[in-house]
Amino acid sequence: MSERVLVGILMGSDSDLRVMAEAAATLDEFGVPHETVIASAHRVPERVRHYAIDAPRRGIEVLIAGAGQAAHLAGVLAAHVTLPVIGVPLSGGRGGVMGGIDALLATVQMPPGIPVATVAVDGARNAALLAVSILAAAHPERELYAKLARYREQMGQAVDEKNARLQQLGPRGYQGS
Amino acid sequence: MSERVLVGILMGSDSDLRVMAEAAATLDEFGVPHETVIASAHRVPERVRHYAIDAPRRGIEVLIAGAGQAAHLAGVLAAHVTLPVIGVPLSGGRGGVMGGIDALLATVQMPPGIPVATVAVDGARNAALLAVSILAAAHPERELYAKLARYREQMGQAVDEKNARLQQLGPRGYQGS
Amino acid sequence: MSERVLVGILMGSDSDLRVMAEAAATLDEFGVPHETVIASAHRVPERVRHYAIDAPRRGIEVLIAGAGQAAHLAGVLAAHVTLPVIGVPLSGGRGGVMGGIDALLATVQMPPGIPVATVAVDGARNAALLAVSILAAAHPERELYAKLARYREQMGQAVDEKNARLQQLGPRGYQGS
Amino acid sequence: MSERVLVGILMGSDSDLRVMAEAAATLDEFGVPHETVIASAHRVPERVRHYAIDAPRRGIEVLIAGAGQAAHLAGVLAAHVTLPVIGVPLSGGRGGVMGGIDALLATVQMPPGIPVATVAVDGARNAALLAVSILAAAHPERELYAKLARYREQMGQAVDEKNARLQQLGPRGYQGS
Amino acid sequence: MSERVLVGILMGSDSDLRVMAEAAATLDEFGVPHETVIASAHRVPERVRHYAIDAPRRGIEVLIAGAGQAAHLAGVLAAHVTLPVIGVPLSGGRGGVMGGIDALLATVQMPPGIPVATVAVDGARNAALLAVSILAAAHPERELYAKLARYREQMGQAVDEKNARLQQLGPRGYQGS
Amino acid sequence: MSERVLVGILMGSDSDLRVMAEAAATLDEFGVPHETVIASAHRVPERVRHYAIDAPRRGIEVLIAGAGQAAHLAGVLAAHVTLPVIGVPLSGGRGGVMGGIDALLATVQMPPGIPVATVAVDGARNAALLAVSILAAAHPERELYAKLARYREQMGQAVDEKNARLQQLGPRGYQGS
Amino acid sequence: MSERVLVGILMGSDSDLRVMAEAAATLDEFGVPHETVIASAHRVPERVRHYAIDAPRRGIEVLIAGAGQAAHLAGVLAAHVTLPVIGVPLSGGRGGVMGGIDALLATVQMPPGIPVATVAVDGARNAALLAVSILAAAHPERELYAKLARYREQMGQAVDEKNARLQQLGPRGYQGS
Amino acid sequence: MSERVLVGILMGSDSDLRVMAEAAATLDEFGVPHETVIASAHRVPERVRHYAIDAPRRGIEVLIAGAGQAAHLAGVLAAHVTLPVIGVPLSGGRGGVMGGIDALLATVQMPPGIPVATVAVDGARNAALLAVSILAAAHPERELYAKLARYREQMGQAVDEKNARLQQLGPRGYQGS
Repeated sequence: MSERVLVGILMGSDSDLRVMAEAAATLDEFGVPHETVIASAHRVPERVRHYAIDAPRRGIEVLIAGAGQAAHLAGVLAAHVTLPVIGVPLSGGRGGVMGGIDALLATVQMPPGIPVATVAVDGARNAALLAVSILAAAHPERELYAKLARYREQMGQAVDEKNARLQQLGPRGYQGS
Repeated sequence: MSERVLVGILMGSDSDLRVMAEAAATLDEFGVPHETVIASAHRVPERVRHYAIDAPRRGIEVLIAGAGQAAHLAGVLAAHVTLPVIGVPLSGGRGGVMGGIDALLATVQMPPGIPVATVAVDGARNAALLAVSILAAAHPERELYAKLARYREQMGQAVDEKNARLQQLGPRGYQGS
Repeated sequence: MSERVLVGILMGSDSDLRVMAEAAATLDEFGVPHETVIASAHRVPERVRHYAIDAPRRGIEVLIAGAGQAAHLAGVLAAHVTLPVIGVPLSGGRGGVMGGIDALLATVQMPPGIPVATVAVDGARNAALLAVSILAAAHPERELYAKLARYREQMGQAVDEKNARLQQLGPRGYQGS
Repeated sequence: MSERVLVGILMGSDSDLRVMAEAAATLDEFGVPHETVIASAHRVPERVRHYAIDAPRRGIEVLIAGAGQAAHLAGVLAAHVTLPVIGVPLSGGRGGVMGGIDALLATVQMPPGIPVATVAVDGARNAALLAVSILAAAHPERELYAKLARYREQMGQAVDEKNARLQQLGPRGYQGS
Repeated sequence: MSERVLVGILMGSDSDLRVMAEAAATLDEFGVPHETVIASAHRVPERVRHYAIDAPRRGIEVLIAGAGQAAHLAGVLAAHVTLPVIGVPLSGGRGGVMGGIDALLATVQMPPGIPVATVAVDGARNAALLAVSILAAAHPERELYAKLARYREQMGQAVDEKNARLQQLGPRGYQGS
Repeated sequence: MSERVLVGILMGSDSDLRVMAEAAATLDEFGVPHETVIASAHRVPERVRHYAIDAPRRGIEVLIAGAGQAAHLAGVLAAHVTLPVIGVPLSGGRGGVMGGIDALLATVQMPPGIPVATVAVDGARNAALLAVSILAAAHPERELYAKLARYREQMGQAVDEKNARLQQLGPRGYQGS
Repeated sequence: MSERVLVGILMGSDSDLRVMAEAAATLDEFGVPHETVIASAHRVPERVRHYAIDAPRRGIEVLIAGAGQAAHLAGVLAAHVTLPVIGVPLSGGRGGVMGGIDALLATVQMPPGIPVATVAVDGARNAALLAVSILAAAHPERELYAKLARYREQMGQAVDEKNARLQQLGPRGYQGS
Repeated sequence: MSERVLVGILMGSDSDLRVMAEAAATLDEFGVPHETVIASAHRVPERVRHYAIDAPRRGIEVLIAGAGQAAHLAGVLAAHVTLPVIGVPLSGGRGGVMGGIDALLATVQMPPGIPVATVAVDGARNAALLAVSILAAAHPERELYAKLARYREQMGQAVDEKNARLQQLGPRGYQGS
């Protein structure tokens, strides 16, 4: 029996998978059921709208939307649902000539009433981690707080190990290794 | 008998009227029937969608959309119709802390397939003039090319008259006058 | 008996209250227990750290942090807890010479591993609404989804009423009214 | 007998063809007769001026101008005709060190009275699609609305097919395929 | 008998006089004959063109052009003459929402072959001083190098006097004085 | 007997005193002997050069330079001395149309070999505090580390007191107080 | 007998030759005697100062300065001479991470009194052409106006020839050729 | 017996070594004992805090912190110590899509009370030179002023030698060599 999807990851184009696949992979690490969907706010607006309206009925609790340039996808989703919507501004793809500042402003500068939780340009992993932290309180059985704590701990250990190695080898030795 | 509306002017908030009313006034000067509508892409998305879908059926031929911050209104309209959509990025209103550069990028940087004809920040008058020039070919009986030519001529004459007065008074005299 | 605080609203300076008080007021509208705290990441780093570490123990589920310039407050909180942290970049206050773009980038561009859910510059109301939507799933008894839906509906009605009045009065009449 | 050209595509340098050829190709898809011309506002100003003045006499109804850096071409055309002028800011070419933000501002920030319909940086395809939508009302025999609808439909189907394939293969499978 | 005009100062609108009148006043200080003209590249393109083409025949040796937004005036002049053209990007006026960065980029980013000598945003005085230094070599009888040296000396003395006064009064005393 | 000056505070114009006087006032709080000098890198370059060359001979140990627009003052000083030079980019004054981003980049982006220690736009107080921390190690008798610690403590207490008052009055009460 | 140098081309680093050599080559085309000098405003400030002070005595009439990042070279020269100084902001070299916007602002935003004639980022050729147009009036025997006119004509012919070829081959054929 | 470390160089990630190793190498040239540490403000906040608090006890006198994106490391250190903290904004690494402008603003725009001495984007060498100049006064036995003077002299000589070679070979010869 398939599990209820908790997070929907949407993106406007398959070229966005390059970045957005990391959101899916990160949710996999946390055992959070999710789905990845290609659906452009501009090219298939009706499907995006239906997806947004259906999402709460299907039990989805968080949406993640990645888009570039005049990035409207997260805002359009947020206009149709009251679920938390996480926006990932994307730097790349065709026309990606501005380092993602266009996508960042088009995602984050939402008017009062309709928030989008925006992460860094190309910050797909952080979007997933934010989704996990949002889900944590309502899903104690998933032990997401504990998993996040462990994730943080491992991240810290990785930093510590690199530092330990740097202390051994020195800057030059480390770079050459 | 009321005339068919040719241009729909939309804006997200009544505070945008400060700028957008100039689009309506300019269309009045050209005798182009139009309507002005407050309809936010984020707060009343269904009404915006219906407006867009209905517009061609009602005989509307051009849409003008003014919005600030993460300005999605023009893009959302453009996603639902193939009529020319003119976007006016707005600098002001609440949260208008960036001089409109956020609204400009969110309006103009549309992805391939769904164009928005963007004018200058707060450029409502130019949006109307662009609409007039778009309507001109299909409505020869309205003599819009001729009216645009006259409008240009008057604009030029106004510049010439100011210049003539400047030649008479000199820079200091002109400023004091 | 006092209720458990669910949302902690922090800001670096009392001058930030001008914007951040709206987050508190919005949470009041939704009946979400919260507290507002002045605590600068740079001036009282230990208190910020203790606040962050204590927050989960005290039952707080979401943190909102407003800061300007090199806005580190949200990031510092996020480094110490795995709760969702919402960042509000602030444009104003002393040294607020860049329209908040400095605060926006310093808040949103978090490195992989430590997300901050960023809203628009000065977007305190949206921060509160985002907090409400995050709390909704874990607190069904608070009926936050229903309250959010009602909030949206009222927002939409307000837009519709303004539009109805605009249709009656026309752009010029509306502006003069 | 050769058909009347409806759209003139101008660019300042042959290096702009890299982007602007897509405008020509897109107009070909829609069967809209057009011509592509190299004519710099700064290097051959008289030819640009004559082109602009002659364009309405020759029956041209829309102009598309692509230019980079201090992109004046669209504005200069717009100063001489009342036809709709579409501006394509170009990011590349020599001196293209700013991701096209210079060309975008130099194209879009036209003063009141002389509009330029600006599309995204390097948005040549959208310039052509905008031209098609502008021509549609005046040329019912060309069935441009229907063609645009079909174009949109195909774009949507392409998105849907990619999505269907993604559902089959999953993010990792899709990327590897 | 009226003297030959050596510098032509052009601007697109009489509202630009607020800044540009300082160029005229500065040329007066140096006794350089000049004229001030209102002539918009977009609204009276033919007059601008004729002005540019006539300028060398009339003995004008330097042009100064002030314009805001998509500031094309200097570039258009430069396309028609080989005289040195000095561009003054203007921050203000209607639509001046970007602090003049749009006008700066539209003025300075000229393509290879057609230079515009650009000064600071609203830098009308410097435009005049630059014109004086350009004229100096060809007009030894006007003793412009000497006058420029004296101007510099006086500027330096003014700084020195302010400093002397500051040393007397101290920062607080000086500000209160 | 007058004390040896340890910090020289320079600025290009007396209008910069509005901001830079705070550096002097802050050094007064710490009992650090200093002098404030008006000396423009562009208008009195020789005096700036002599000041820089003389500074080490006079026993000055830190220089603070405040300048706006194309802010060269700090860089010019740094080219002539190996003392630590602190740069304060200034937003205001005439031509201050860009919120100080021009002054920031012109101050901080120094080429390899000649550093300038840059603080925030208009950050004169921080420039002084940085100077104090630089002087601390070489002047143990001045107990600057202890004074800095006390300054920090007081800053922290001020934040704590404001917070305590906020807890008493609540956000609304605090703002009204 | 060697000819008097009329234009001095300075740059801060030999890596700038990549761009600045084009200024020298362009002056060669016009037969204008010039010299190219490496002299950093920050690393050899005394040599730069002497160069500036000596330049008028040596008969040099125009200075061209290319610099990147916090580009002070042109401003430092302009502080020491009243000759026209042309600034070329450079995008590249080490630390050239901002597309030259830092160098542009540091070059162009000069304070009132000390102008720098700024050209486009990396615009070395235009700097040379501007120098030629500045020299033209004082050196009639060099026939620089005539040479500039011929240069413009050839530039225009080159554009026309490319256009003629494009008309023959069409956009696709031209790109493939 | 190992020498007391005077400068601590911290960075958030080992990928920052690419830039930051130059700070260590430069301190080596000056014989200043230092250590290089990987310690992220977000991933190992406790270690960073302990490092900062311990630094003065261990006799460290200057801290250098390199970080990218929402670069908080320098600010977090500065919040915990009153030692001079030098911040190096980093352009690169993952998510480095904005040329370091995000890191620059997040590093330099510190609020009043807590300064960070910021150098250019990727300016690790200048950070080290600034540290040397800060240490010079308190460590006369290290003769750092003399070493800095020699360093400057060599830098100047290198420029002079390149210039001499350029005078011999000419621009074309130099580039080909």
